[in-house]
Amino acid sequence: MTHTGRFQIATRGNAHVIDITDDVQRVVADCGARDGILVVFVVGSTAAITTTESEPGLLTHDLKAFYDRIAPEDGYYKHEETWHDDNGHSHVRASSLGPSLTVPIVDGAMPLGTWQQIILLDFDTRGRRREIVVQIVGE
Amino acid sequence: MTHTGRFQIATRGNAHVIDITDDVQRVVADCGARDGILVVFVVGSTAAITTTESEPGLLTHDLKAFYDRIAPEDGYYKHEETWHDDNGHSHVRASSLGPSLTVPIVDGAMPLGTWQQIILLDFDTRGRRREIVVQIVGE
Amino acid sequence: MTHTGRFQIATRGNAHVIDITDDVQRVVADCGARDGILVVFVVGSTAAITTTESEPGLLTHDLKAFYDRIAPEDGYYKHEETWHDDNGHSHVRASSLGPSLTVPIVDGAMPLGTWQQIILLDFDTRGRRREIVVQIVGE
Repeated sequence: MTHTGRFQIATRGNAHVIDITDDVQRVVADCGARDGILVVFVVGSTAAITTTESEPGLLTHDLKAFYDRIAPEDGYYKHEETWHDDNGHSHVRASSLGPSLTVPIVDGAMPLGTWQQIILLDFDTRGRRREIVVQIVGE
Repeated sequence: MTHTGRFQIATRGNAHVIDITDDVQRVVADCGARDGILVVFVVGSTAAITTTESEPGLLTHDLKAFYDRIAPEDGYYKHEETWHDDNGHSHVRASSLGPSLTVPIVDGAMPLGTWQQIILLDFDTRGRRREIVVQIVGE
Repeated sequence: MTHTGRFQIATRGNAHVIDITDDVQRVVADCGARDGILVVFVVGSTAAITTTESEPGLLTHDLKAFYDRIAPEDGYYKHEETWHDDNGHSHVRASSLGPSLTVPIVDGAMPLGTWQQIILLDFDTRGRRREIVVQIVGE
């Protein structure tokens, strides 16, 4: 059995972190698969998907501060000469984290920890409407 | 065909890196799938999965030193104000690496390189008993 | 249905970034799957897979500059004492990014963004011939 779910998320950009666990769980419930694998994939090259504890300190400060430190907004990015834009750091951050997360489905649910949620990180320099594709293969 | 394997790993925390390749291979052998995809997933938001060469320099020093540099233990993490704990850096490190690794199964085995092993990294500030879920979809 | 594709890529090493989207799309076309999941996996522990915009600034400068900053070539790596080699930074970079990328297949294609391509990053200190395995599970 394969099943595709899609949803859109409006972001503010600038390392805006959004908990999308409920949206992904809705796709799992719609699918009805008991066991399988799902991939959560964000379309575009300035956003990424991972997990964290959905808690205000991490969501609004710590993850952004980490990426501000390792890929500063005011650094030199040759990308910006190509397009005369300002989001070289957004691309580097998104590539280093990756656009997809793969999670098991066991007994109809994802085996996430109690304090482990699925997050979208939008690293672009402006708000975007992000397209998320959730693909399930299972039975 | 879908197949679920689970195992637990006792860690010391503090960027303890453990080679779990044999545990994952055991799940592949138990499953009997010839071809497919597997995902190795660690439950919780302060640990991560990736591959490396299983060699003492990397396992006991270099990976820890890298994460000590990019997400220092003594930095400021707003997370720690929320819970009055000390593992903000653990969360940031785990999120930046991710809780899962996806690997092909071809002819009944993972096509890992000779010097490429699957590792669990526990970034928490204390020892933990980690639950690993291996989910296989294939035939 | 499962399907395995393999191809090789000659690299120059030293954070050489190569757009492999066409190679992966060829495997998807050969497979004929309408819907499913694919994993792109690089064999070896000094290379990695992710997505970016395939544009010269990012491919030839920005991603390399990022990894030069967070895992410098001239840092101390205990790995190099074990083998008397020079690629400790290559291992650390590759582990932090990961050897695989998972992507949905929807209606016979990957839902990549217009400016989102699949890339191989070879972090080793010399040119290599890299083996890429693309495994598809779907229908």
